[in-house]
Amino acid sequence: MPRDAADSTFIDTLAAQFPDDMFGPADQSYLEEPRGRFQGMRGFVARPRTTEEVAALVKACSDAGVGIVPYGGGTGLVGGQIAPEGEAEAPLILSLERMTAIRAVYPQENVLIAEAGAILATIQSAASDVDRLFPLSLASEGSARIGGLLSTNAGGVNVLRYGNTRDLCLGLEVVMPDGSIWKGLKRLRKDNTGYDLRNLMIGAEGTLGIITAASLKLFPRPAATGTAVFVIRDAEAALELLSLAKAQLGESISAFELMHRTGLDFLSQTLPDIRKPFGDHHPEWMILMDVGLPKGLDPQEALEDLFVAAEEDGIASDAVIAQSEGQRTDFWSVREHIPEANRRIGAVSSHDVSVPLGELPHFIARVRQAIAQVGEFRINCFGHVGDGNLHFNVFPPEGRSRDEFLDETKQIKRLVHDIAQDLGGTFSAEHGVGRAKKADLARYGDPAKLAAMRAIKDALDPKGIMNPGAVLS
Amino acid sequence: MPRDAADSTFIDTLAAQFPDDMFGPADQSYLEEPRGRFQGMRGFVARPRTTEEVAALVKACSDAGVGIVPYGGGTGLVGGQIAPEGEAEAPLILSLERMTAIRAVYPQENVLIAEAGAILATIQSAASDVDRLFPLSLASEGSARIGGLLSTNAGGVNVLRYGNTRDLCLGLEVVMPDGSIWKGLKRLRKDNTGYDLRNLMIGAEGTLGIITAASLKLFPRPAATGTAVFVIRDAEAALELLSLAKAQLGESISAFELMHRTGLDFLSQTLPDIRKPFGDHHPEWMILMDVGLPKGLDPQEALEDLFVAAEEDGIASDAVIAQSEGQRTDFWSVREHIPEANRRIGAVSSHDVSVPLGELPHFIARVRQAIAQVGEFRINCFGHVGDGNLHFNVFPPEGRSRDEFLDETKQIKRLVHDIAQDLGGTFSAEHGVGRAKKADLARYGDPAKLAAMRAIKDALDPKGIMNPGAVLS
Repeated sequence: MPRDAADSTFIDTLAAQFPDDMFGPADQSYLEEPRGRFQGMRGFVARPRTTEEVAALVKACSDAGVGIVPYGGGTGLVGGQIAPEGEAEAPLILSLERMTAIRAVYPQENVLIAEAGAILATIQSAASDVDRLFPLSLASEGSARIGGLLSTNAGGVNVLRYGNTRDLCLGLEVVMPDGSIWKGLKRLRKDNTGYDLRNLMIGAEGTLGIITAASLKLFPRPAATGTAVFVIRDAEAALELLSLAKAQLGESISAFELMHRTGLDFLSQTLPDIRKPFGDHHPEWMILMDVGLPKGLDPQEALEDLFVAAEEDGIASDAVIAQSEGQRTDFWSVREHIPEANRRIGAVSSHDVSVPLGELPHFIARVRQAIAQVGEFRINCFGHVGDGNLHFNVFPPEGRSRDEFLDETKQIKRLVHDIAQDLGGTFSAEHGVGRAKKADLARYGDPAKLAAMRAIKDALDPKGIMNPGAVLS
Repeated sequence: MPRDAADSTFIDTLAAQFPDDMFGPADQSYLEEPRGRFQGMRGFVARPRTTEEVAALVKACSDAGVGIVPYGGGTGLVGGQIAPEGEAEAPLILSLERMTAIRAVYPQENVLIAEAGAILATIQSAASDVDRLFPLSLASEGSARIGGLLSTNAGGVNVLRYGNTRDLCLGLEVVMPDGSIWKGLKRLRKDNTGYDLRNLMIGAEGTLGIITAASLKLFPRPAATGTAVFVIRDAEAALELLSLAKAQLGESISAFELMHRTGLDFLSQTLPDIRKPFGDHHPEWMILMDVGLPKGLDPQEALEDLFVAAEEDGIASDAVIAQSEGQRTDFWSVREHIPEANRRIGAVSSHDVSVPLGELPHFIARVRQAIAQVGEFRINCFGHVGDGNLHFNVFPPEGRSRDEFLDETKQIKRLVHDIAQDLGGTFSAEHGVGRAKKADLARYGDPAKLAAMRAIKDALDPKGIMNPGAVLS
């Protein structure tokens, strides 16, 4: 644990070494997070412009025993970016918002190098400008920064085809907890020269160092893309449709998202302007699917063929295939506004679980049954079902507020995570641990892995200054 | 460093706790490696049958301060599996050869769980039996074991499409250096619950623990596959052909291997029965390409289209497309026998470098020029050019022996690695560090990364018993 606070005395001693506008009081935007569950301590924010400045700041904090909370776009959902009162002395918030350069693009190599503060949408555009695809895509792409996305190994809607953020990174530049700089911005597909420090930093949520830049993989853009919404028989049919689609289209399926009637009902209640694929009719279970095909194959035809086969097998009963880019955007708008609708309704408990693909239907059935025994709740179960990842959110009955069910929250959280664990799954598929799920990690984590994590943390950050209080207690 | 030897006194004290046939003297097969550069110390081998036995062995070695060399198929090329005299006290060789079970196959999930001693070809067959593909493929697949392939993050010919061994692994079971068992055999595509211990163990070459089982990714088999050999203009044209092929076929290219006339010449001299694609004519530069296409596309047609475009652009002047499985096997047999032909000729220096894709032609030109200044050598430059990975091997002039050039070996090795480093590349793309490249790691490794590696090694293996002398000194 850091021994000292980033108070005005500390900031004053540092200020002389850095440009005038480096430090400022952290305004409210640095102290809150999307779900409103954590409130940060008042304190100072540093906004460096270069890797060398980040290194000098970290060195100064290390020397003084002052904690650091690395700050990206602030979109994390588990409080990894927020240090609340009581955990430790007030840390310095180190925001990467001024390090936003796309340092280089190598279209022939399918590589792009971006600084940690670059916003995901900017990176997507830079790739698009050279006729390439950077496939990471998620609802917060207009504000999430690549440093944070890497630190949390973000997921999103294209993991099925292109992998997690981890899989999209070739190299990193990182300021280590002692202020040294690891210059690992390789553009290599193969590099077997020692331990995999890159993947250790990715997903460490800022507790082992600060990512300042990354070398990212680009991809050829599929020659043609298509989007459809399938109405499926039940949750089990999602897996059957996935198998069928994989058999027909191989790895061309880039997104495979489950949606439930409850999500559409919530949209109608809270965001009535969002256009829904079947109008006022809200089918119980739906799959939103994207395909990207090589030259010579027609997406419309491929999706029609898939529907015909799925209908024959009793998997799907209806489908709409997007006929225009506008319709495609509409379909995706539904999926992407479900989290906002959920927020407006107000969940008793939200979950980001994953289970082995084959266990998905059992998971949904067992959890529904267990929750029904706790009380009468509404469930919105949706998400990246192609990856075995469900956002399983529990809501109060119609007309009641989440505040009436605070006692049940803990009970529900526990039973959902217990069932996921029992089926070989996990309590955090893509959101990470942060501060919200530390107790879950301690409860469900493998003891040998936890011991190794502790040993690694103590070895790389012996003073405990990096994001103190996150991930590990 | 371990403080004690695995001598007969130590083995005798252990023997009572384990089955009768657990220990034996290590015969010559455990003490030599394919390139004949390292000779192991005489000593004992342990052959456990279960993870619990591995854990008990490691615990006993940890308690006694005895080193352990984990042993898979013995096919590694950098001496990672061989402890020579003089490095440390004689370690216990711990062979995984009896832990060969395929524990489970989940076709619907595209997952297979194998024990560390399972041979790669066996895993490929088990996948094939359920109409799936396990894409890891390399020359030694008939004897390499998955534990060793994971520990060295092996590459091979399908990395371009499917990634390194690292990318094919979902979870691990590992015996840690204190004898505890990390039960991490998840079947999840997404699991953001703490540090990435999986990727830290993968590629650690047995210095951080012993992999006892792995959960592996399977893939749908492409609906149709095709193979061709293109005669290309020069080394630069390899990149142009790759760009063209990616533009036409997206991610359907699964292998893209460079071959040079020298390789065919060596085959004619040493293995004359291998059938070559253009008979006695040996073109200077060739690309061997595999494509795997979804339903609806014809590989023959796709490869023909590609050749027509490549010829028009002055990239390729000739091509043969395999007309049968037999011809496909013949093409690949050429590629896969080049290493054996090299061995029979006897290299002055062998390299496994990678450079950023765009730098490949510069690398080849600069190294050729630099070597010409050292003397008159033959160069066989071949390999996984689609990944930026070249096996760049230097041979004595015709009629002379490698033994006459021992003085030049060091000089050539140094200049090849210096040029790779200068271009942003690496001295080990897929073979690892082992014992052969420790000095290179110390020389070329990033200091901050080396310091982190050292700290991690000391934290996880404080007694230094795991593969002592490998990777780090």
